[in-house]
Amino acid sequence: MPVMQSPPGPRVVIDGREVLYFAGTGYLGLQGDPRVIEAACEAARTYGVHPATSRTGFGESPPLLAVEERAARFFGTERALYFVSGYAGMSTLVQAAPRPPALILADDWLHLAGRDASALSGARVQRFAHGDPDDLRAQLDRHGGRGPVFVLCDGVSPVRGDVAPINPYLSMLEAHGDARLIVDDAHGVGVLGRNGRGTLEHAVEEAGEPIGVNSENLADPAGGRGRLAWMCGTLSKAIGGSGGIIPGDEAFIARLKTTANWYHGAAASPAPAAGATAAALAVCLDEPQRREALRSNAAYLRAGLRGLGLDVPNHPTPIVCVEIGDGANMARLQAALLARGVAIAHSRNYAGVNDEGALRIAVFATHTLAMIDELLEAMQTHL
Amino acid sequence: MPVMQSPPGPRVVIDGREVLYFAGTGYLGLQGDPRVIEAACEAARTYGVHPATSRTGFGESPPLLAVEERAARFFGTERALYFVSGYAGMSTLVQAAPRPPALILADDWLHLAGRDASALSGARVQRFAHGDPDDLRAQLDRHGGRGPVFVLCDGVSPVRGDVAPINPYLSMLEAHGDARLIVDDAHGVGVLGRNGRGTLEHAVEEAGEPIGVNSENLADPAGGRGRLAWMCGTLSKAIGGSGGIIPGDEAFIARLKTTANWYHGAAASPAPAAGATAAALAVCLDEPQRREALRSNAAYLRAGLRGLGLDVPNHPTPIVCVEIGDGANMARLQAALLARGVAIAHSRNYAGVNDEGALRIAVFATHTLAMIDELLEAMQTHL
Repeated sequence: MPVMQSPPGPRVVIDGREVLYFAGTGYLGLQGDPRVIEAACEAARTYGVHPATSRTGFGESPPLLAVEERAARFFGTERALYFVSGYAGMSTLVQAAPRPPALILADDWLHLAGRDASALSGARVQRFAHGDPDDLRAQLDRHGGRGPVFVLCDGVSPVRGDVAPINPYLSMLEAHGDARLIVDDAHGVGVLGRNGRGTLEHAVEEAGEPIGVNSENLADPAGGRGRLAWMCGTLSKAIGGSGGIIPGDEAFIARLKTTANWYHGAAASPAPAAGATAAALAVCLDEPQRREALRSNAAYLRAGLRGLGLDVPNHPTPIVCVEIGDGANMARLQAALLARGVAIAHSRNYAGVNDEGALRIAVFATHTLAMIDELLEAMQTHL
Repeated sequence: MPVMQSPPGPRVVIDGREVLYFAGTGYLGLQGDPRVIEAACEAARTYGVHPATSRTGFGESPPLLAVEERAARFFGTERALYFVSGYAGMSTLVQAAPRPPALILADDWLHLAGRDASALSGARVQRFAHGDPDDLRAQLDRHGGRGPVFVLCDGVSPVRGDVAPINPYLSMLEAHGDARLIVDDAHGVGVLGRNGRGTLEHAVEEAGEPIGVNSENLADPAGGRGRLAWMCGTLSKAIGGSGGIIPGDEAFIARLKTTANWYHGAAASPAPAAGATAAALAVCLDEPQRREALRSNAAYLRAGLRGLGLDVPNHPTPIVCVEIGDGANMARLQAALLARGVAIAHSRNYAGVNDEGALRIAVFATHTLAMIDELLEAMQTHL
């Protein structure tokens, strides 16, 4: 396995060699930001590694509270719940159900976190075709009114980079009555929407005429006003910190603190990670231009790849996925680029990608146009 | 909720006030150790907050590898798997089953992590009376040979501090044939056994005539030789770091890397947490006298509490649990001690403790006898 010996960023050190890096999820380029690093050290010095007890004991601590306060500001919600890993978000939301779901409809590409949450729920689980409102509608109709339904999907597909069709989903869930959408927005938070609030904010902006939903309840997806959709996200990808987050109104977050096994049973984020995350959120709030740079870089990369004659889907995300020949050819291309000092990923057998796989190119706010040109030139050479 | 504004240790700052602290799980006193803190900062400076991608991508990094190398040394096993939270350990082990369990027998006091793992497995789940080999045997007999059985328990009860009767369990599991013991040793690792390897090592030492098990397969509980017992632990309690750990032989850890959804889908430990944890493990390996001090402090505390006329169970752990009157009385006592500057916990509704609760007193290797005397005097005053 290759070993990364530097912070992630436009240039990284992998196995002792500096390479141009277009992989991973550090979209806003903050994981190695000196302000973020210094905050990690400051928190470690002040609070140690960890309070070593749960938040319901004596483990409530200032860096955790700072993350939640800033996350609520970031999402425009009253409160937020911060926990040690974004992976636990879907499980936490599924456990928050006032009535246990009778049926979970899971997007066919659903990430492992959502699959584990589905299994944990004990409900019957059925898959629907990825991003397909018609198939979802057919399955909802078949279920009829026999108990609550949860629809689980990822906001942004981690490898393919496409965005879930939230508005059509919400429209039909509203018509159904006893159904709720639960979105794992690991790759949307920090990236999509005017304020970087993710896929739900993006959906509101997309709907000229928001269907069955308004910006208020999407900006605050939890609790009474947000009865149709709940979301969780991670702060370890675009945001540049660590751990998972669920934004919501006061009542909803208070409810999670009674229902979430992770809240009661697991250690919260270690202090240096929480300190770093609070600092990273502050940067995200203060520097919206990072999101602009990210969008503009993603558009430049997509255009450049099209210029090479490649078929590049037009998604509003920094994840650019292309298929070039079969798996063996893509493995060859990925290895040739890495040998030349340019790292991209050949992703296989993961959330929407089969054994042949696909090339996944991630662009960051901190890539320069010259760096993107270097990637394009390298690809042209080896295609 | 009280807020802890310092590292955990014998003296902490809670809500702006320094108090003598006998709560939480920082048993060896390393969470605020300068060597551990400095390692957190060093890792943050060198590797950033996080590689922001999974270990199967470009997210393998030196601090994660250092934790696994030192953890394997600590447990005396060939390898170890490190992950972001000890809470995910039981789920990871349950998912590693070569054949899915037909039945899970769960200790009645099983921690939430084990309960979530049980639900995740999809198997039928039955509880057996806490720490009761006879009840376990009766339920095993009733099940007969109808498919694989997993027996799930905690090595050390988090509030009560008692130790699971591993030897009788293993003896009957061996007789049963297709059954395996899975132990969450969150509170045993770093504390029990000559090398601090936890409840399984303690069991080997306890059995003058090890029944159906030998020290070799308990020291290496996974894979072929350890076919009867698997264990997971946390590095965030006694060890003084952060995250979860599963020790095992090479084949078993390689297998986990193919079966564990957390390994494939979740972010690994953030770099400063991993750096701190590697340093904490080094201290645990180098300073066995910390475990000695912990044992001697625990014995001194238990004797002192008995001297106050209290009924104190004789467990070989640093968790001392006493019941003094009803819940209201214990709440009063806990509050009176805190007002006087001594923090202990009144634990309720948690793994073996009902709504009345119990007083949980945790002792550390770093408490002085004078500090323990101060606690005893305070308790005598307010009893």
